[in-house]
Amino acid sequence: MRKLLFAFVALFVVSFTVKGGSPKYIFLFIGDGMAAPQRMIAEEFSKLNGRGSLLLNTLPAHGTTRTSSADALITDSAAAATAIACGVKTNNGMVGVDPDGRVVRSVAEVARDNGRKVGIITSVTLNHATPAGFYGHRRNRSMYYELGLDLIASGFDFFGGGGIAGHDRGDKDIFDLATAAGYRVVSGKDGLTSLKPGEKAIALAGSRSDAMPYRIDAGENIPTLADITAKAIEVLDNPNGFFIMVEGGAIDWAGHANEAAANLFEVLALDEAVRVAYEFYTRHPDETLIVVTGDHETGAMTMGFSGGGYNLDLPLLARQRCSIGRFGEILEQAKANDPEFDFEKAKLLITRYFGIEYAGNGPLVLSAAELTSLQRAFERNRLPAALRTLMNNKAGIGWNSGNHTALPVLTTAEGCGAMLFIGFYENTAISMKLKSLL
Amino acid sequence: MRKLLFAFVALFVVSFTVKGGSPKYIFLFIGDGMAAPQRMIAEEFSKLNGRGSLLLNTLPAHGTTRTSSADALITDSAAAATAIACGVKTNNGMVGVDPDGRVVRSVAEVARDNGRKVGIITSVTLNHATPAGFYGHRRNRSMYYELGLDLIASGFDFFGGGGIAGHDRGDKDIFDLATAAGYRVVSGKDGLTSLKPGEKAIALAGSRSDAMPYRIDAGENIPTLADITAKAIEVLDNPNGFFIMVEGGAIDWAGHANEAAANLFEVLALDEAVRVAYEFYTRHPDETLIVVTGDHETGAMTMGFSGGGYNLDLPLLARQRCSIGRFGEILEQAKANDPEFDFEKAKLLITRYFGIEYAGNGPLVLSAAELTSLQRAFERNRLPAALRTLMNNKAGIGWNSGNHTALPVLTTAEGCGAMLFIGFYENTAISMKLKSLL
Repeated sequence: MRKLLFAFVALFVVSFTVKGGSPKYIFLFIGDGMAAPQRMIAEEFSKLNGRGSLLLNTLPAHGTTRTSSADALITDSAAAATAIACGVKTNNGMVGVDPDGRVVRSVAEVARDNGRKVGIITSVTLNHATPAGFYGHRRNRSMYYELGLDLIASGFDFFGGGGIAGHDRGDKDIFDLATAAGYRVVSGKDGLTSLKPGEKAIALAGSRSDAMPYRIDAGENIPTLADITAKAIEVLDNPNGFFIMVEGGAIDWAGHANEAAANLFEVLALDEAVRVAYEFYTRHPDETLIVVTGDHETGAMTMGFSGGGYNLDLPLLARQRCSIGRFGEILEQAKANDPEFDFEKAKLLITRYFGIEYAGNGPLVLSAAELTSLQRAFERNRLPAALRTLMNNKAGIGWNSGNHTALPVLTTAEGCGAMLFIGFYENTAISMKLKSLL
Repeated sequence: MRKLLFAFVALFVVSFTVKGGSPKYIFLFIGDGMAAPQRMIAEEFSKLNGRGSLLLNTLPAHGTTRTSSADALITDSAAAATAIACGVKTNNGMVGVDPDGRVVRSVAEVARDNGRKVGIITSVTLNHATPAGFYGHRRNRSMYYELGLDLIASGFDFFGGGGIAGHDRGDKDIFDLATAAGYRVVSGKDGLTSLKPGEKAIALAGSRSDAMPYRIDAGENIPTLADITAKAIEVLDNPNGFFIMVEGGAIDWAGHANEAAANLFEVLALDEAVRVAYEFYTRHPDETLIVVTGDHETGAMTMGFSGGGYNLDLPLLARQRCSIGRFGEILEQAKANDPEFDFEKAKLLITRYFGIEYAGNGPLVLSAAELTSLQRAFERNRLPAALRTLMNNKAGIGWNSGNHTALPVLTTAEGCGAMLFIGFYENTAISMKLKSLL
């Protein structure tokens, strides 16, 4: 027994080799609205479904990252992105500028100026606060068109994911300007596949103006964050190395909406993208750094709630087939198509999309009171919200807010320089540590 | 700027020296019901009150510790103590035995058998689940008398903190058995002070049967966890070294009660005890290990809640002068002493104990609606609970449960062997890592 323990410890120490020098390839993953609760609910869900731990949780370096902005203990995503990207605390709502409006430089810009290629990937829009923090410099995160101009002016080599919000709200369409600046704009899985190494590109998952759909709602033809990350590596790989930022942006949106299933599937989608980077890392272990962090917590999400006991029942969220928002659309369409649509017909949809049953002994068999409650919600046009509460309660997940919270986020890392990400530090330190490695 | 960054990184790497070998002195601090939310609310409170970061958060090694028990994703304190102390997952409610009832050995027992002295300190009762996990072996954590027998049978050198629950519920009083077994039983600050190096002792803070009072309620003559830790070091120091476990047990109780101020003052009290150990570490840096962990999260505590915006206002909790439970006692006594006690008189008490005001512009000036709400609560004999909710809301702290949750806890460490506590691991791994170092 004693020998076994020593072997265990020795293995741990050896596996956690401190790799020195400057990483040629840097991956920075940011879960928007992803702190330990979001990471760990997805973790337990994955394990209970027989798929094991999330890679993003098991990276060996662990750190605790404080997220406050210059003017509030609870940050918004613009100030958080500025901190993580540029190393400066600014006011909520401001992107890539300090509280006085002075431009501050991001780690992606430093990487570009040092001769590296740069890729920016997100599941929401490309000019949303988090990605914008890496190339944009505006006093207000809502200046979408201007941030679109900043995107093109950055000269970064690859953008992928959602569309560009407000791209047609200025003199010239941002996409026309992008084409003129040498970007090839492609869309969908086929478009992504067509990209060749070295091409400057904007790869849209589908929409030109909107975020990617939630993973739980996305069809086969929508590329995943992992697909886009894999293509970015192929396009950007070059002798001078690269810096790639990948944002799981819709984790935050599902957090604001207090949707457990949508939230955890977004975390799982980010983990799949981390796995793509990790596969690259195994081929370049001495030259690659992977950092996974969040910008803040969203929703005051808790692993247990006042109505629950000491057990969670996360696997039943696997039965949910779409987000609450998407279900609302499905329900409205069903009503529009059938003038005699009633609760009995709605019950069939509820079973199809949530796995809820009305007889038997399963965890999603409703009591008479629960069924009556859903029927009332249906009659008041509040069925989707009632189903959201029901699924959260059945799974044992609590939400204490529709806003962000001040809980520090968990940062994990692997590879060359990962050691720097151990400990307790401000979100601004992430930028400083990364810049020091460039 | 570039040079500054390099200096920063170099300093970090140098300061985080990996110290090898076996630590002669081991301190294990356990915050019961203390995960990142509890640690970080106390952190922000301390900083906003000009007292800086908590030492327990800034220890350089950071790890994420999963807390599930053998039979539930949400652990109780008995199964958690068995995991942390003995390295075995057992069922909720069981102490120091595996799910089949077989005795499993704790790291404290291994330390004792290796010739070290052992100290067990807690702010709750000495035979409560967490301390009992280090010496007791019972199928049911409620077997307090039998756990008292186990306490004496352990032969550990020092016990300090709360009393022994049910000490007089068997054939012989546990304290008589303790005296017969060579323990000197002392009480209060004077009793603690009187202990000499090498003495075998049970040092009660005050009560023989109950927990220590909440720190926020404790008078001058009650020794603190820090006082008891300092004395334990003095009593236990010897050429073969020691193992000292210090539990902040009442953090959990304040969590179950959803009391923000009581909770954070208990975390601060644990931090003061960590500072005592750290001072010892600075004198024996190559021979000392300090580990700070929690057994689970309690209360689904969140840094922000549905009624709040993007700001917390934690400093106002400094105005609270007693726990909600203690205020209930004060209120009942005031009513008993004054037949004409009314809400106008209660308002004076509310101001004295919570800093709440009825005119002006401060953060604790009540609106007319809030005042009416308190008056109604007074009339319904629910004033303490109403004040609890009011203070949580004003400070911006949410509680989503009166139970434990499954959020993994943060583990931090410093000193010889601290490196082992970086990463993502089960609570059982803490015992295994510590045993490997003995």
